[in-house]
Amino acid sequence: MSVQKTFQRLIELIRKQDEKIKDFLENLHPSDLAELVEDLNDRQKQEFFALLSDEDAAEIIQEMEEFDQVTLFRLLTRKRASAILKEMASDDAVDLLGELSEDESRELLNLLKEEAAEIRGLLQYPEDSAGGIMTTEFTALPLTLNVEGAIKRLRQIAPDAETIYYVYVVDDQKRLAGVVSLRELIAAQDEMLVKDIMRKNVISVDVSMDQEEVARVVSKYDLLAVPVVDEEQRLLGIVTVDDILDVVEEEATEDIYKLVGTSEVEGTDLIDATVFNMSARRLPWLIISLLGGLVTGRVIGFFEASIEQVFALVFFIPVIMGMGGNVGAQSSTVFVRGLATGEVEAAEVWRYFFREVRIGITMGLVTGIMIALAATIWQPTIANLGLVVGLAMCITVILATVIGTLIPMLFNNWGIDPAITAGPFVTTIKDVTGLLIYFLVANLLMGL
Amino acid sequence: MSVQKTFQRLIELIRKQDEKIKDFLENLHPSDLAELVEDLNDRQKQEFFALLSDEDAAEIIQEMEEFDQVTLFRLLTRKRASAILKEMASDDAVDLLGELSEDESRELLNLLKEEAAEIRGLLQYPEDSAGGIMTTEFTALPLTLNVEGAIKRLRQIAPDAETIYYVYVVDDQKRLAGVVSLRELIAAQDEMLVKDIMRKNVISVDVSMDQEEVARVVSKYDLLAVPVVDEEQRLLGIVTVDDILDVVEEEATEDIYKLVGTSEVEGTDLIDATVFNMSARRLPWLIISLLGGLVTGRVIGFFEASIEQVFALVFFIPVIMGMGGNVGAQSSTVFVRGLATGEVEAAEVWRYFFREVRIGITMGLVTGIMIALAATIWQPTIANLGLVVGLAMCITVILATVIGTLIPMLFNNWGIDPAITAGPFVTTIKDVTGLLIYFLVANLLMGL
Repeated sequence: MSVQKTFQRLIELIRKQDEKIKDFLENLHPSDLAELVEDLNDRQKQEFFALLSDEDAAEIIQEMEEFDQVTLFRLLTRKRASAILKEMASDDAVDLLGELSEDESRELLNLLKEEAAEIRGLLQYPEDSAGGIMTTEFTALPLTLNVEGAIKRLRQIAPDAETIYYVYVVDDQKRLAGVVSLRELIAAQDEMLVKDIMRKNVISVDVSMDQEEVARVVSKYDLLAVPVVDEEQRLLGIVTVDDILDVVEEEATEDIYKLVGTSEVEGTDLIDATVFNMSARRLPWLIISLLGGLVTGRVIGFFEASIEQVFALVFFIPVIMGMGGNVGAQSSTVFVRGLATGEVEAAEVWRYFFREVRIGITMGLVTGIMIALAATIWQPTIANLGLVVGLAMCITVILATVIGTLIPMLFNNWGIDPAITAGPFVTTIKDVTGLLIYFLVANLLMGL
Repeated sequence: MSVQKTFQRLIELIRKQDEKIKDFLENLHPSDLAELVEDLNDRQKQEFFALLSDEDAAEIIQEMEEFDQVTLFRLLTRKRASAILKEMASDDAVDLLGELSEDESRELLNLLKEEAAEIRGLLQYPEDSAGGIMTTEFTALPLTLNVEGAIKRLRQIAPDAETIYYVYVVDDQKRLAGVVSLRELIAAQDEMLVKDIMRKNVISVDVSMDQEEVARVVSKYDLLAVPVVDEEQRLLGIVTVDDILDVVEEEATEDIYKLVGTSEVEGTDLIDATVFNMSARRLPWLIISLLGGLVTGRVIGFFEASIEQVFALVFFIPVIMGMGGNVGAQSSTVFVRGLATGEVEAAEVWRYFFREVRIGITMGLVTGIMIALAATIWQPTIANLGLVVGLAMCITVILATVIGTLIPMLFNNWGIDPAITAGPFVTTIKDVTGLLIYFLVANLLMGL
């Protein structure tokens, strides 16, 4: 059935308040349903969720975009909303509450009673820390259980736990003592003790660790979930790999956006953000760029006399500026991405830097010779023009690799996000440097 | 123990050929060991791997970077190499063979015997398709088994399968009939039949599907693994979420690199690529940029007469060109990333486009008014200069959003990767357009 037809069928079943909707829902994945529901109008949404159990509703809502979750929650009564919230995974519930207004969030928490304490606990962690993305629905067994008992216990709690593929083993202080995978449990003899088959070197993350760092740990060790602990090694929650996938994608988008000086509009889909919101995200960077462009123009102004003597110098302003910008952007971007993925490590940055400079010299020589030839052929009557343009290009390209690598290195050392290096400050530095080199070389070699 | 100390201890144990190396290895994760081994010299590597069983060696090698895997394999005898290859997961074995020379790969395959057919089968799929990243170590059960029998079967095969968290159910034609998670199996009664507890709507991917699309499916449905089928729905393999994490990161890096016109050097670490290799990746884009810059310079040449009359026009060339470039890059990047993450869907592109134009108008008005004021204050004596620069800026910014969105839309429709839109062709188009608008407006309003 096509998406359109499925959607029509859903609307029809809602309108008729048809019992068949149960069968219809069973044949669809909650993710697909979430997409369909996002396109319903408010009344249809209300009628649809009235037909669902709290549990089914929670499963669908968990898969919706945060923006649509908020809209939907405002259509429900407080009582219903809190009942659904109770059925949601704790990490999803916390994310949703974080998007609602403080008043709404407080009201819902008051209705939640026993779960409220847990969720309040989770709400205190920064959104992009291990604590902010973890769920508390993990499976922990005491050290002293045997395999048979463990499997029996898992059979009971299976429907509720977020993942039972890793079973954590804790001591009587709730400190993480080991981990055993469901697979190892299944493969072991019934009478063996959990503590004898568990692995003791558990890879865990601290509750305050940045989500990007958590993603790197999960990715490096190919984990399906990673336990989150406090300073006393007490097990607080787990972060599952499906949330890590979202983190990796989110962080990559953030880095890409930073390259062009914009950011995501929070709490909304890209396609649904307003013109005002999107412009507001993009304008600050553009305005600083604009000021940078004026500074660069001012630098050209200094050399008015030179240009009046040799007008052809103007022809090469775009290529000198553009090339410095391009090379610098390449250097910064490759370096910053290398830092983000862990391919460039702190111990190796200087080795990286010196190779980058050698790359700059290679590219500077190639492009310098090319532009020198082009300039000589284009304007054969102007003495030394090829030499001037070629030399300026070569120096500019080399300097661009130096600036393009050094500034993100410094930013990174100072704890500033290096991804903003492609921004207008650095661009202006590169533009002005390039033009100064160009006109100084021209003045020197042409005797202007 | 610090990494340095662990490394020293490893070297010592290798040198002494100490039996204690077994305990040492047990306490380290293969991923951590792989990192340590990469830093050993060739002789140490040989001695180290001589101490290991084929299985342990395979586990460590799987975690190494491809470049280091190749170097290591060339240090081993053909016989040892093929024995280790046999123990590796089929997807990792295939990736490694793909990196070796054809002769080496053929020799190893000949030594592999029974596994060779399977690996040859996998080698035929494109590297970035579902077939290219799948593993054949999945778990499939016949329709007619009961839960008790299924769990017993899983206990036997657990050590070999890549993941037993999903158990696939196949009919007698090996066609995928359903899926049951280990969790559901554990929670079900012993005497129930597998076919009665399995879910029949299995989310699967076609063997030829692009890896990026596979990642989107896994991420959307929060899967730990997705089955790969051929046209007849026969189960060929599975793609696991740890490989999907690598795909997402790899694709994001690729997209980021394309933004600045470079690409990864295949088969090597970023930090270990040679100066020549890195320069060769980056130069083609720079050279086209250079030609683009010359074209732009030529355009300025056309307006020599105008500039000679009003020299101040030169001051605003950098800001007009720069702003067009920045705005266009923002538009392209946000759109292309939206396509990549699925946030912008085919059905919505026109709605997206018209919102982008409205964003362009907003930003054009703001930046146009700002630059007009700046120009008037800076050069108050030149009549109409503020008007000229402001109007040109406004038009350029709006056009940049149009070009910046329209060109990747067209590329996408034509099946060309839209991520290359930030490239030099499009940049030249934006630069030339911006300058033409600027000088035309100047000629018109200043009567040059």
